[in-house]
Amino acid sequence: MTHLPGIPVALEDALDIVIPTIRDLHFLEQWRPFFQRYHLIVIQDGDPDRKIQVPPGFDVELYTRRDIERLLGDHAWCISFKDSACRCFGFMVSKKKYIYTIDDDCFVAKDPSGADISALEQHIRNLLTPSTPLFFNTLYDPYASGADFVRGYPFSLREGCPTAISHGLWLNIPDYDAPTQMVKPLERNTRYVDAVLTIPKGTLYPMCGMNLAFNRETIGPAMYFGLMGDGQPLGRYDDMWAGWCTKVICDHLGWGVKTGLPYIWHSKASNPFVNLRKEFKGIFWQEDIVPFFQGARLSPAATTAEACYLELAEQVEQKLGHIDAYFARLAHAMVAWVEAWRLLNPAPADAEPAAVAAAVPKQEAAAAPAARAKGRRVG
Amino acid sequence: MTHLPGIPVALEDALDIVIPTIRDLHFLEQWRPFFQRYHLIVIQDGDPDRKIQVPPGFDVELYTRRDIERLLGDHAWCISFKDSACRCFGFMVSKKKYIYTIDDDCFVAKDPSGADISALEQHIRNLLTPSTPLFFNTLYDPYASGADFVRGYPFSLREGCPTAISHGLWLNIPDYDAPTQMVKPLERNTRYVDAVLTIPKGTLYPMCGMNLAFNRETIGPAMYFGLMGDGQPLGRYDDMWAGWCTKVICDHLGWGVKTGLPYIWHSKASNPFVNLRKEFKGIFWQEDIVPFFQGARLSPAATTAEACYLELAEQVEQKLGHIDAYFARLAHAMVAWVEAWRLLNPAPADAEPAAVAAAVPKQEAAAAPAARAKGRRVG
Repeated sequence: MTHLPGIPVALEDALDIVIPTIRDLHFLEQWRPFFQRYHLIVIQDGDPDRKIQVPPGFDVELYTRRDIERLLGDHAWCISFKDSACRCFGFMVSKKKYIYTIDDDCFVAKDPSGADISALEQHIRNLLTPSTPLFFNTLYDPYASGADFVRGYPFSLREGCPTAISHGLWLNIPDYDAPTQMVKPLERNTRYVDAVLTIPKGTLYPMCGMNLAFNRETIGPAMYFGLMGDGQPLGRYDDMWAGWCTKVICDHLGWGVKTGLPYIWHSKASNPFVNLRKEFKGIFWQEDIVPFFQGARLSPAATTAEACYLELAEQVEQKLGHIDAYFARLAHAMVAWVEAWRLLNPAPADAEPAAVAAAVPKQEAAAAPAARAKGRRVG
Repeated sequence: MTHLPGIPVALEDALDIVIPTIRDLHFLEQWRPFFQRYHLIVIQDGDPDRKIQVPPGFDVELYTRRDIERLLGDHAWCISFKDSACRCFGFMVSKKKYIYTIDDDCFVAKDPSGADISALEQHIRNLLTPSTPLFFNTLYDPYASGADFVRGYPFSLREGCPTAISHGLWLNIPDYDAPTQMVKPLERNTRYVDAVLTIPKGTLYPMCGMNLAFNRETIGPAMYFGLMGDGQPLGRYDDMWAGWCTKVICDHLGWGVKTGLPYIWHSKASNPFVNLRKEFKGIFWQEDIVPFFQGARLSPAATTAEACYLELAEQVEQKLGHIDAYFARLAHAMVAWVEAWRLLNPAPADAEPAAVAAAVPKQEAAAAPAARAKGRRVG
């Protein structure tokens, strides 16, 4: 942190932790020293009548499907049901600047010295220091302690760009697709790579939602996890979809995406047979989706994540619609998501982008702040 | 190495080690277990009458300035004098498929377990396994042991691309420019990052020549370290120049560039005051050079490194000539380099690219194989 002295490593008042779950949250016990000072938003997937157990002492706001439907009304369909994609509802109801989202089968990992890794602290460092998407630094994050820009790195680029996303990794169970899980059932990730790096501009990556932080104020309105799960032909592509959309938008708007540290301990491999059923269409479709995103261009008029996202939705319908009727539905859901975002996060009148203003009925926008206070407080 | 079983980790008959030096090669003692089976090409810079000491038992072929002038005749001016850029002459006289080049102030580094790192072995693994420049894999090198492609990585891209360059890193003294050296005289690189990664297509990086391996058969003719040192306005940009040119060409031809492991131990910081004098023009010029390379496009007709390099030379003269007369000279030197390469490496008549065939007089090309046997054998 030599370039940016005095970076706080805790942001209790500026960051919410979002957890999608269908089970009791015993995993929080291990995270207590790290999460207890933060506000937690839990999205309870599946049966809304089930009572989820939360360890005492946490500040938890919990939403079930019933809450989502009550708060979003006829926009609720854009939030996935019976799929961890539902987590993005938590991004929408938060009022904080930053979000950290983590899966409930992820535990505290240890660094090579045996010390517990404070994943959240590292994510905050990643988000509060600039990114370097325009030129690759061979010693990785130049803002890390003991590192810098190497010889030959243009001085005009050393201020970097604002960081929008911090993508953390996983020790133990790697995030493999079903075919790879089946071929390598015993493979475990034991390699601790002590690096954070910026994914260069113009390069796509597979973003995993298991251990992810982002700046909600900038990229939040594009962090939609798509239509997955119940009633949809696809699962396990929620985070991929969000990753591809947000990377294209970050590249367009000059924001950075980092990957690498911090690690969490991913405890349990999901069932590869179930996974294959969820993801097999995606395995075919991604062969078209990835080139689509690699070639996607946004207009200079799109200067906010919302405006970019609406342009992208239009392109999805036009250019991916031929693959399957699903993509037209997904494109409509992307628009519904932005409308719902604006419903719960009304922009100050003078800063409201025209496209979104037109899409959101005024009376709904006005009703939103009152509506969102109705999440159940737990713990 | 799970994807590519049976990769050899030694290539005695297919790799030469190139070392530029002005001093006795005592540093080889530490490398004896790793280098002794290989053929070494030493480019003795500076005074050609000085007798360089080489530890016994190494297979060394040594060239002085006098040898360079004798072998290249009126093309010798393209090889830098009094600058480690002269190393590229060694790339030209080699007849092997692969080159490893290392500086004489670089020693064997240790991994976190305390074991000696066989840098050459790791470079060979890097070169013999594919690269993945078209999509970023978040678990780094998918061909490394215990790793693979993560969920969301398109299956059509998992065969990867041929690797042209393996860029290794440095523990202890980092490769900083003079201003950074001056500001942080005590900074040492102690972070062992256990990763190899492909630098994505379209992204430039600062290539350091200190610990570098490449496929001479593919990218060799573009691995020219420019005009530096004696009589030139610039130093310490030799490897940067080669790195920018070769990256643009690798991107065009579908070849990969890796960076990361292996580490060597860089023992000694060069004098920052001397360095500043050598590089200060480069610090200004790189602000124009980098955008030039970021925007450089090669024609579909350019299907070899030579053909690409000649196109690039033309663009350098046209688009960087306005900065300083140096760039026209450099562009001419780039052409002279390709001519000299062809002189020492005559292509089979049927495979000879037209542009180069026209540039190299036939009698010189024919004379080359005899001429090059005259390097002094030492040790």
